[in-house]
Amino acid sequence: MSVNLKKLSEELGLSISSVSKALRDSYEISAETKKRVMEMAEKLNYQPNAFARGLRKQKSITIAVVIPEIANNFFSLAIDGIQMIAQQKGYHVLTYLSHEDAQNEESTVKHLQGGRVDGVIISLCGDSSSVKHLQALQASGVPVVFFDRVPESGEFPTITTDDFDCGFRATEHMLLAGCRRIAYLRMNGHLSITQKRMNGYLEALKKYRIPFDPKMVVECTNDNNGNIELLKRMLKLKNRPDGIFASVEKLAIATYHACSEINLKMPEQLKIISFSNLRTASLLSPSLSTITQPAFEIGREAATLLIQMIEKKNFSNRIEQIVLKSNLIERNSSRKRAKAGL
Amino acid sequence: MSVNLKKLSEELGLSISSVSKALRDSYEISAETKKRVMEMAEKLNYQPNAFARGLRKQKSITIAVVIPEIANNFFSLAIDGIQMIAQQKGYHVLTYLSHEDAQNEESTVKHLQGGRVDGVIISLCGDSSSVKHLQALQASGVPVVFFDRVPESGEFPTITTDDFDCGFRATEHMLLAGCRRIAYLRMNGHLSITQKRMNGYLEALKKYRIPFDPKMVVECTNDNNGNIELLKRMLKLKNRPDGIFASVEKLAIATYHACSEINLKMPEQLKIISFSNLRTASLLSPSLSTITQPAFEIGREAATLLIQMIEKKNFSNRIEQIVLKSNLIERNSSRKRAKAGL
Repeated sequence: MSVNLKKLSEELGLSISSVSKALRDSYEISAETKKRVMEMAEKLNYQPNAFARGLRKQKSITIAVVIPEIANNFFSLAIDGIQMIAQQKGYHVLTYLSHEDAQNEESTVKHLQGGRVDGVIISLCGDSSSVKHLQALQASGVPVVFFDRVPESGEFPTITTDDFDCGFRATEHMLLAGCRRIAYLRMNGHLSITQKRMNGYLEALKKYRIPFDPKMVVECTNDNNGNIELLKRMLKLKNRPDGIFASVEKLAIATYHACSEINLKMPEQLKIISFSNLRTASLLSPSLSTITQPAFEIGREAATLLIQMIEKKNFSNRIEQIVLKSNLIERNSSRKRAKAGL
Repeated sequence: MSVNLKKLSEELGLSISSVSKALRDSYEISAETKKRVMEMAEKLNYQPNAFARGLRKQKSITIAVVIPEIANNFFSLAIDGIQMIAQQKGYHVLTYLSHEDAQNEESTVKHLQGGRVDGVIISLCGDSSSVKHLQALQASGVPVVFFDRVPESGEFPTITTDDFDCGFRATEHMLLAGCRRIAYLRMNGHLSITQKRMNGYLEALKKYRIPFDPKMVVECTNDNNGNIELLKRMLKLKNRPDGIFASVEKLAIATYHACSEINLKMPEQLKIISFSNLRTASLLSPSLSTITQPAFEIGREAATLLIQMIEKKNFSNRIEQIVLKSNLIERNSSRKRAKAGL
C-alpha cells in the first residue's frame, strides 16, 4: 500500500509542509533533514508520483531536446524513443536543432532557464568547445541528461554506447577481411565520442601490428559534395586505402557516391564498414556492413532518467552513466568474398 | 518608414486601444471596424511585427507540430523546415507523434487548447475519421495549418503537393517502360492524399486503355513483416504484376525485401517506382525511381504561413491552399533496359 505525505510526516516528526519542501529540494530545508526525509520516503516506499502530480501545477511538464540535426536516422530514432517515454509520463517535448553550431546551442540553452522546461536532454554539437552553459542550467535546478555526444568530465548523467569497443571490433573485422590500409573517416574530431571510436581503431591496428599512418585519418566536414571530392582524390592515389571505416553514416554514403563516380568496385577493390542506423543498409549495392547503435533505446533511457530526476524519484546522489551495446552487422560491403545478390 | 500604432489610430480616428484590439481580432470590436483597421494598416504599411513583439508577453511563442511518426524521411525533413522558420522567428516547437492513432491525435489536440501554444501544424494520422477536434481548436482562436495529409473540406489552410498529377505521371512512366499489370500499394486508404494518388493511377490506366483490375490495389498496413509476406504471396502468383507503384516509401522497401527473398529480379522481372524521400535511393540495388516531395520546403511553407496567421501579418480572409510540385526521378528500378552500375 502506498504511503501518503501525512503518514510520512508523522513518521518523521516533521510538518507536512517541511516534508513537502524537502522532497522538492527546497533551499529552506537543511541537507541533513533532506537526507532523513529521502531515506524515510524510500523505506516506506512513498510514491512521489502523486506528489509530483500535485507539484506539476508549478512545473511546465515540458522537457527540451537539443540535437545537432533531425533529418538523420540516428537522431530521429532517438527522438522517437524520447517521445515514447514523454507521452507515457505526460510530458511535452520541445525540440531544438543546433545545426552543429556552438553559438546556436548556447543561446538555445540560455533560453531554457527560467521555467520554460523542467529538464533538458542534449547531444552536443560538433562545434562545442565548452559546456559552461549546461553547467549553469544544471546549477539553476534544471536537470540535464546527455546522450551519444557527451562531455568527458563525468559531471553529468549520460547515455552512450560502447564506442571504443565498436571502433576496435569494426577495425578488427576489416583486418580479418583482408584489409591492410584502412582509412578512418571522421568529423567533429574533438568530441569524446569521435576520439573513443578512433582509439578503438588505433588499438586494433596495434594488436595486428599494422603501423598507423596519420594520412589514413580523413577529416571530413558537413559539406557532402566536398567530402565526395575529398574521397575521390584519396581513392585515386596509387597508395589508396583498401578499406574504409566511416565513423558517421553520412561519410559511408559519400564513399558509395565517390566509388560510383570513379568506378571503384566494392567490396572487391574497397571494403567498407560504418556506424549507421540506415534502415536500407541491407538493400544498398553492396549491402553495407554497419555498427548499429540502439538509437530508439538510447532515447528511451535518456527520457526515463531525466523524468526520474525531474520527479525526484531517483533519491540517490550518484550520477548515472549508462552504456548500451551496439551491434556489428556484417554484410557484403566488408565480405572477404562477396556473396551474390543482396 | 514604418508607422506606429499611434499614427495608425490618428489616421483612423480611433483610440490606440481600439486599434490594438482590432489588430488582435478582439471580439469587442465590430467586424466592420476591424476591416477598416486592417485596410488602413495595409495602406500605411504598418509593421505588425513590433506589435506582435509587444503582444508576445501574453503569448507562448510556441507552436506545436503533430505528425504520425518521426523516424520517417519525409516527416523528419518537414520538421527540419519547420524548425528553420521557427528558429528565425523566435518560436519554440513542441512535437507530438500520433503513431497513426486517431484517439492519440485527438487527446493531443485537446491538450493544446488553453494557451500552451499559439498555433498548430498537423499532418493527419492514417486513422483520422473526423477533424472536429481541430475545428474546435481553430474556433478557440488557435490557428491550424495542415500539410501533406489534409482534410478534404477546404476549411483549413493547407500545404500539399500535386498528388493526383504525380500519381498519373508515375503510372504513365511505368506504362511507357513496358508495364501492363501495375500493382498500386497503399496504406491509410481513406486519406484524401491516398485517394488523389490513386485517382492519378486510374486516370493513367484509362488514358492508355489498360483495364483496371481491383486485385491490383494492395491494401498494406503498418506491419512491415506482414507487408513483405503479402507481397511475396502476390509476386509468386502466375498472374503477378510486372510493375509496382508504391504510394509510400516503406512499401517500396518492403517490395525490395520481398523480391530479394523470392529471387525476383528488378527491374527485369518487376519494375518499381515509389513516393520517397530516401536519401540513398540512388544507391539501392537497383537504384529506386522516385517521386520526391519537397519535404523541407513543405515544412518551411507551413511554418511561415502559421506564424503569419499567429502574428496577424496576413490580413486577408482567404484560406491559403498552397500546392508544391514534386519531382519524378527516373532510376534503374523502372528502366526499360537497366543500365549497368548504379
